[in-house]
Amino acid sequence: MFIREIESFIEEDLGYDDVSCTIVPDRPVEATVFTKEDCTVAGIDEAASIYYYFGIQAETDFKDGDRLSKGDVIFRLRGGAVSILRAERISLNFLGHLSGIATLTRNCTDIVRKHSETTRVACTRKTTPGIRKFEKLAVAAGGGDTHRFNLSDAVMIKDNHVKLMGIEAAIKAARKTSFTRKIEVEVESAEDAVFAAELGADIIMLDNMQPDEIKKTLSILKEKELRESVLMEASGGISLENLEDYAKTGVDIISMGSLIHKSRWIDVSLEIVGYEA
Amino acid sequence: MFIREIESFIEEDLGYDDVSCTIVPDRPVEATVFTKEDCTVAGIDEAASIYYYFGIQAETDFKDGDRLSKGDVIFRLRGGAVSILRAERISLNFLGHLSGIATLTRNCTDIVRKHSETTRVACTRKTTPGIRKFEKLAVAAGGGDTHRFNLSDAVMIKDNHVKLMGIEAAIKAARKTSFTRKIEVEVESAEDAVFAAELGADIIMLDNMQPDEIKKTLSILKEKELRESVLMEASGGISLENLEDYAKTGVDIISMGSLIHKSRWIDVSLEIVGYEA
Amino acid sequence: MFIREIESFIEEDLGYDDVSCTIVPDRPVEATVFTKEDCTVAGIDEAASIYYYFGIQAETDFKDGDRLSKGDVIFRLRGGAVSILRAERISLNFLGHLSGIATLTRNCTDIVRKHSETTRVACTRKTTPGIRKFEKLAVAAGGGDTHRFNLSDAVMIKDNHVKLMGIEAAIKAARKTSFTRKIEVEVESAEDAVFAAELGADIIMLDNMQPDEIKKTLSILKEKELRESVLMEASGGISLENLEDYAKTGVDIISMGSLIHKSRWIDVSLEIVGYEA
Amino acid sequence: MFIREIESFIEEDLGYDDVSCTIVPDRPVEATVFTKEDCTVAGIDEAASIYYYFGIQAETDFKDGDRLSKGDVIFRLRGGAVSILRAERISLNFLGHLSGIATLTRNCTDIVRKHSETTRVACTRKTTPGIRKFEKLAVAAGGGDTHRFNLSDAVMIKDNHVKLMGIEAAIKAARKTSFTRKIEVEVESAEDAVFAAELGADIIMLDNMQPDEIKKTLSILKEKELRESVLMEASGGISLENLEDYAKTGVDIISMGSLIHKSRWIDVSLEIVGYEA
Amino acid sequence: MFIREIESFIEEDLGYDDVSCTIVPDRPVEATVFTKEDCTVAGIDEAASIYYYFGIQAETDFKDGDRLSKGDVIFRLRGGAVSILRAERISLNFLGHLSGIATLTRNCTDIVRKHSETTRVACTRKTTPGIRKFEKLAVAAGGGDTHRFNLSDAVMIKDNHVKLMGIEAAIKAARKTSFTRKIEVEVESAEDAVFAAELGADIIMLDNMQPDEIKKTLSILKEKELRESVLMEASGGISLENLEDYAKTGVDIISMGSLIHKSRWIDVSLEIVGYEA
Amino acid sequence: MFIREIESFIEEDLGYDDVSCTIVPDRPVEATVFTKEDCTVAGIDEAASIYYYFGIQAETDFKDGDRLSKGDVIFRLRGGAVSILRAERISLNFLGHLSGIATLTRNCTDIVRKHSETTRVACTRKTTPGIRKFEKLAVAAGGGDTHRFNLSDAVMIKDNHVKLMGIEAAIKAARKTSFTRKIEVEVESAEDAVFAAELGADIIMLDNMQPDEIKKTLSILKEKELRESVLMEASGGISLENLEDYAKTGVDIISMGSLIHKSRWIDVSLEIVGYEA
Repeated sequence: MFIREIESFIEEDLGYDDVSCTIVPDRPVEATVFTKEDCTVAGIDEAASIYYYFGIQAETDFKDGDRLSKGDVIFRLRGGAVSILRAERISLNFLGHLSGIATLTRNCTDIVRKHSETTRVACTRKTTPGIRKFEKLAVAAGGGDTHRFNLSDAVMIKDNHVKLMGIEAAIKAARKTSFTRKIEVEVESAEDAVFAAELGADIIMLDNMQPDEIKKTLSILKEKELRESVLMEASGGISLENLEDYAKTGVDIISMGSLIHKSRWIDVSLEIVGYEA
Repeated sequence: MFIREIESFIEEDLGYDDVSCTIVPDRPVEATVFTKEDCTVAGIDEAASIYYYFGIQAETDFKDGDRLSKGDVIFRLRGGAVSILRAERISLNFLGHLSGIATLTRNCTDIVRKHSETTRVACTRKTTPGIRKFEKLAVAAGGGDTHRFNLSDAVMIKDNHVKLMGIEAAIKAARKTSFTRKIEVEVESAEDAVFAAELGADIIMLDNMQPDEIKKTLSILKEKELRESVLMEASGGISLENLEDYAKTGVDIISMGSLIHKSRWIDVSLEIVGYEA
Repeated sequence: MFIREIESFIEEDLGYDDVSCTIVPDRPVEATVFTKEDCTVAGIDEAASIYYYFGIQAETDFKDGDRLSKGDVIFRLRGGAVSILRAERISLNFLGHLSGIATLTRNCTDIVRKHSETTRVACTRKTTPGIRKFEKLAVAAGGGDTHRFNLSDAVMIKDNHVKLMGIEAAIKAARKTSFTRKIEVEVESAEDAVFAAELGADIIMLDNMQPDEIKKTLSILKEKELRESVLMEASGGISLENLEDYAKTGVDIISMGSLIHKSRWIDVSLEIVGYEA
Repeated sequence: MFIREIESFIEEDLGYDDVSCTIVPDRPVEATVFTKEDCTVAGIDEAASIYYYFGIQAETDFKDGDRLSKGDVIFRLRGGAVSILRAERISLNFLGHLSGIATLTRNCTDIVRKHSETTRVACTRKTTPGIRKFEKLAVAAGGGDTHRFNLSDAVMIKDNHVKLMGIEAAIKAARKTSFTRKIEVEVESAEDAVFAAELGADIIMLDNMQPDEIKKTLSILKEKELRESVLMEASGGISLENLEDYAKTGVDIISMGSLIHKSRWIDVSLEIVGYEA
Repeated sequence: MFIREIESFIEEDLGYDDVSCTIVPDRPVEATVFTKEDCTVAGIDEAASIYYYFGIQAETDFKDGDRLSKGDVIFRLRGGAVSILRAERISLNFLGHLSGIATLTRNCTDIVRKHSETTRVACTRKTTPGIRKFEKLAVAAGGGDTHRFNLSDAVMIKDNHVKLMGIEAAIKAARKTSFTRKIEVEVESAEDAVFAAELGADIIMLDNMQPDEIKKTLSILKEKELRESVLMEASGGISLENLEDYAKTGVDIISMGSLIHKSRWIDVSLEIVGYEA
Repeated sequence: MFIREIESFIEEDLGYDDVSCTIVPDRPVEATVFTKEDCTVAGIDEAASIYYYFGIQAETDFKDGDRLSKGDVIFRLRGGAVSILRAERISLNFLGHLSGIATLTRNCTDIVRKHSETTRVACTRKTTPGIRKFEKLAVAAGGGDTHRFNLSDAVMIKDNHVKLMGIEAAIKAARKTSFTRKIEVEVESAEDAVFAAELGADIIMLDNMQPDEIKKTLSILKEKELRESVLMEASGGISLENLEDYAKTGVDIISMGSLIHKSRWIDVSLEIVGYEA
């Protein structure tokens, strides 16, 4: 985390004059940060950066992606009482929110692994404004793929593009734009999938297709000897509940906006466990 | 939204060179933004600011807090194709995330209203790092109270404060700090609630108390003629499921971190509906 | 002080290429920062942050709010000559300006203490643009109250609000807005003070009332048993000269924009006292 | 003013959620900004920028530097009630603070003009941290000279420089640094003034010299035919009270930190004068 | 260009108080911006943004990438004299620097087109710190490819990576990282090129290979039926002088850091051509 | 370099998630930064700041302005592999670009020194947008003068000023503006040079004059006893090729935009030379 970012998160939680923490006598204190539920942890680096900024000594036995059990101590802290109280909510908000995403992602990748060694679970650009970077890394911590970060690191040709210019013109325009970026095309039929593959798309996203249609599309591509040269992605309406059906289709990627927008926070807490008299 | 904020959200989604939207012929386009599910909408102003920045004409019949039905058109847009594609995800992420919070809050306030005309549902400082301002206003859009914004706009004496200095010293220190900020004390027993009220706390938060204990505490305060001079808040482990029991206790405020950290996004979408040939 | 703030203050004083300090041979130097007049010091933390940023060792025996005598050494510094020359003006500007505010505030609180143990002297939102945070903390260093920091940490219903919607509607709207923020109402008559108190205002500001009117208003509130439940603030045209008359009225707070906008800087200086040959 | 600056000043005064202005019904309003005392006005552009940002129509008959009489209307405003209440304090703080500086400067230049047509009154780098640019332009509005803006736009060789390297080495080093920047030397004796002039200093500052010593120094320079080639500046302990004595000495510049650090704000006010029913 | 960027470029050229442009009487002025040499223009949008910010009307008949002849008028401007003088240098620096890059790139692509319809000329990450975005778009204006923008939009396995982990481990690690980003491998021999292609690299960069070695490598890949599935890039020591030899090799991409780091500015000028009396 | 600047340069090169460096096992590594050609080095401090930010130990035997031979090691680095790979391109871009400017400047000053001990070579305001500060300091490293940094640190009266108000009015206006800033006037004839000198200009720039005309102008000024009181600058169309002719004219300053806009980068490289097994 950039210092500029840390300061901006602190400013958000402190306001102009912190009338809450300053009332406490500023003596040395020991505290623990622990989880109140089983989870896959994320946000370790972000929390550590915040503690470091406040001059708090922070020890941890974990790294992002580790599976934790209820009660596990994530950090042991030593520092001034005022600093620890100030760092409390900011660091817990990162740990709680990001571990929530990592845990949901881990649940999904565990389900997928039962049926496929290679199929990836990926998030989308549906991320909370302002903290995409952290949320995507939390998906990675849970074993998922971060997918495209922004409009610059891959070309995605979506329904609205197709409506405006058609698949063929879009793929050709995309190829001219940049040779370093992959081209992904969103299609709604096996026919369009074949068409896009023939035009040289690197990734084809099957939008809102049912598992059966997906399987059928994949076999058509195989027949036409197009399957090997493209990555196939299933997307749209996939959740923890129906994920297993998609995992069985043989697609390369299952993308789920819900990894982020349906995740719920993990309950983490900071407790002062000792202080100088 | 400040221009500085808008530009930072755009930068997050665009990256350095937008290779995705620029492939499209930049002709005038009409589009609609609509909801795919019933909801209480929030994020209208944020989305409108983003459209305005991109030079897109945006009309809406709604304002934050309005109840929308599946299919309702939130915005009718007219603008260049490239601009609309660029504004799409950024604005939808605001609308989806904030409407999710507003809708969950509205569900909670509706439940509470069955039993009390005055009890408020409030969020906490458990907010997604970086966008507290927007999330708290989404809570307000759902009929909730934003509670304390940061460590500066009210003094909250929490368990860790009490551990370090005791309730009495903490309240006295808080009163010396500032006469404009209210003082809230978190207690775990009726006895401490009485003690805090006698010391002049403005708000008393009953932490993790069961509904029955809350009722009992309120009646003890009434007996001692302390009930009128303080606002009483229930907090800790309250969710949509058990909210009704708390609504019946007669507390003034029910605070729920879950308004934000268990909310899920509302599904909103942008569709291009017309364009010049 | 945030690093971002320190860098911005340095940039203001250095410009693009510091042609002034760079001409000096950069050898280790000792210097002292001292006051040329009696004062209540403020700005210690700000100056220390600046020295720290420049890698200068800085020792001090004082903290904000201490009363200093002419000639007292505020900081003993050791560092490179170039760094010390660069830090000089920036740190002195903080110490001089903020100690000026703290000293004037101390003079006022000393006067008030002759007549009341509890009456607070407070500043207002009339602060120099860009450095309110530092100026308000200087008021606190002088024993004053920072009052409301911004439009978000308390609701102040002023003359222009009343003109637009009346006292009653304003107080009711304010109560609906937020339960954590206090409500202050500005009134110009005893009658309105009683009205506001009955409507539940937390603080009532008596605007431009003469001491006699204030006393009378307070006794009317006492008669109506409303005095205990509100904080009473006198404001408008109060200066060092007439402060004593207001201190005798029994109000809870005397607010004076002049703590900041009529303060004058304390004369502090940095002198190089030794250097390596 | 940069948009970035305007937004930062607004953020300082608004905080995260403006609970104060938002309670008002947002109808069209007319207001006037007027001065409650005679003054030389400054801050017109800054205030106008703020009104413009808020979408408020602002008309003025004045520009920075104009002499205003008590009661003069500086701005006539038309805009939404919420916007005008939000812009009120921010714009008044600029007008009040900067007009205070301009007015004090004007008083000083008026005094000096009685004795010299050409002697300039100048401020120093003793400015309030963060708003030097605005304060220096207020000095200019009052007829004063802004002097050096920062360590980059002229080389000033001060007592601490001289202590570290002597006058001669310092001037020689400064000449090597840059041909576009003037070189100013601070001296405490006529002898050093002559020495600095002979070495080619562009400006010589006579530090803490009494008027008689200054006159004597100037006549020695004249005798040695050095007077024409340098600008002579008097500085140190000069105030409104003793300014006249310095004005009679014939120096080219009289610099006074007190233009800024002893100025007091002009009392300006915003009044709502009409609104739609 | 973001407003934030424009303001930062203006601040760089203006400093705190513009003493240069402000001396001019601020009357309406007409001016032209023209080129003093044949060129491929770039920076049109950047210059236009700057004129717009200053409230200057700017008309142009050109867009980035157009070929201009000596004397062509790039912009016709109308605006206040002070604004036009302020915008002059900032806008010319963009036009001069970026047109220099576009022109050199155009020269290179023209040479390559003689021998190949499809081979791309690309720049690298050797860009002037702080303005990569603008420089890369200038390369595009000249008909070149922007190549990778930063460490996030493609994986480049370079000599130092290979030294640390070998080609095979590096490609495997890269494939695990992200499915949306292409993988490019830098190799120094035909053998390694084959190895990388077999491992599934998307792009292979032949580092510092002579044209003959390149041709030989390509034919080996063809023999092994690996040529179609990878993009082949030549890089290292390629300049305007030897470019033709590389163009004949049949590689897909020729990348040249020199497009940026050996470009020289185009001479563009702003002339005031009329003003109101 | 400010931390804010370092973070912004890092962000430009890293993007949101660095998929390139993170694939490497993060073990301790030794590396050298060396030059592949003879040069005058610049950018040492900038590179060192970047290494420091990344926690890399960096040793150097050189400082800006030193003449280096092909193969010289500029930095010896020790640090984590990921950090060193991340710092590589950012630091090399500074070293390559700035050393290019310093080397060209050194070549020019060497030529000038053959004919004059005192004539300065100076750059102009034709600098790459965003990094003027660094480029001007590179000129200084090469023995050149930074000339005016921005519109605030000296008044330059150029052709467009003269067209709008004439030389006399411009000089008089400039003198009123500020006594600390030098006044430079651009003229195109000996006559105007004399006129400007008589009016008290500090610096006179002979624009686009041939060496012979320059000599003649200087001798006219000498005759009129005006030569000593002004600095004479030659400018316009001066390059490495014709520089010698200008060096012989006896002007005080030769300014060349080409120091920056015709410089080419020095080839510097980073090589990993050891790592822990």
